[in-house]
Amino acid sequence: MNAKELLLILREIKDVSFSSVDNSGNPKCRIIDIMLIEDERLYFLTARGKDFYRELMENNHVAVTALTKNFESIRLEGKANKVGDNKYYLDKIFECNPAMNEVYPGDSRNILDVFCIDKGIIEYFDLSKHPIYRQTLSFGGEKIKDKGYFINETCINCKKCFNLCPQSAIYELNGIMNIKNENCLHCGLCYENCPVKAVERW
Amino acid sequence: MNAKELLLILREIKDVSFSSVDNSGNPKCRIIDIMLIEDERLYFLTARGKDFYRELMENNHVAVTALTKNFESIRLEGKANKVGDNKYYLDKIFECNPAMNEVYPGDSRNILDVFCIDKGIIEYFDLSKHPIYRQTLSFGGEKIKDKGYFINETCINCKKCFNLCPQSAIYELNGIMNIKNENCLHCGLCYENCPVKAVERW
Ligand code: SF4
Ligand code: SF4
Ligand code: SF4
Ligand code: SF4
Repeated sequence: MNAKELLLILREIKDVSFSSVDNSGNPKCRIIDIMLIEDERLYFLTARGKDFYRELMENNHVAVTALTKNFESIRLEGKANKVGDNKYYLDKIFECNPAMNEVYPGDSRNILDVFCIDKGIIEYFDLSKHPIYRQTLSFGGEKIKDKGYFINETCINCKKCFNLCPQSAIYELNGIMNIKNENCLHCGLCYENCPVKAVERW
Repeated sequence: MNAKELLLILREIKDVSFSSVDNSGNPKCRIIDIMLIEDERLYFLTARGKDFYRELMENNHVAVTALTKNFESIRLEGKANKVGDNKYYLDKIFECNPAMNEVYPGDSRNILDVFCIDKGIIEYFDLSKHPIYRQTLSFGGEKIKDKGYFINETCINCKKCFNLCPQSAIYELNGIMNIKNENCLHCGLCYENCPVKAVERW
């Protein structure tokens, strides 16, 4: 799976959840349509009169989630910027998404501004598999930060974490204990229970 | 539709999007299961090792969104607090949601903390109707704040807004122009175009 494929799955799901932060620093979210994917760029729009628009003007970080029909979850984080050529993208979007004409008929579409996310992190997470499976990808040249847990060299190999892990995400290789991050829930059970605090957060 | 019915629809959808804010003030979201509804209280859980848990400990405001099969969107805002009796609720939740045993088998469930939202605002929004339809309800005694737009007494009855509104949400009653909030997109087209600035945000 690559980032572009995940972006296209978001477009296919279409109605996804967009989170932003309001001016009191509290979370807001609403269902927003993914209107267009071009290369690794994701486009959506909102009306200038909406709270969401004001929130984006103050803090353009957004977090997006969606669930596929098979209950795989997709999470995206990035920054949303207004496109330079609003009219061009509005017309293109209305052409690819004809139902928009029922919500914003005729010239009323001009109250809408198109935003683009051209860089970010996208995560795939399948909780229905056993062990669970996760994959983190970036697009538009964003750097991926390590998340979750790892076992450092102070580990005394007591195997307590190995026995506790709900997803069997801990394995031994050449006498050294490791966490398989792609199968890890990030639940923290190993971290809470290691007798020598050898489990660390990235 | 009352708030309890909307909470039960969230439980039926089950996998919904939960937004929070991280310690940099940026939005985060992920798919979370609605585990239980009791009266007007909504329960979910998360593991103590997850970022989501840390975020809730620092700012317990959450925003929830979900989409029904008929493309109605539901939005909830409230505060999430840890329950007093974690063990009681954990066991109850695992009983009502047996698939949880596959993700957190045996005693590993004890890494999970149960949270309750007992007070908040819940909004129903149907974009597939024409005109669109929205309804805002509260639960647990939360106060509803007015949102969107209204027309004040400086209106000169030019009907510009009436002609522009994409959802015909503006009507005249006894010579006075009004906005029917339940059909309003909050798009701001009336607000941007009123020649005498008679359209105000609540
Ligand atoms: S519990 Fe700690 S010391 Fe024991 S094997 Fe795991 S990481 Fe090593
Ligand atoms: S965080 Fe949880 S799932 Fe991940 S390795 Fe530790 S115990 Fe296993
Ligand atoms: S555009 Fe302004 S002045 Fe004209 S009818 Fe609407 S609210 Fe009144
Ligand atoms: S905000 Fe938009 S939908 Fe609502 S009354 Fe004004 S023009 Fe109509």
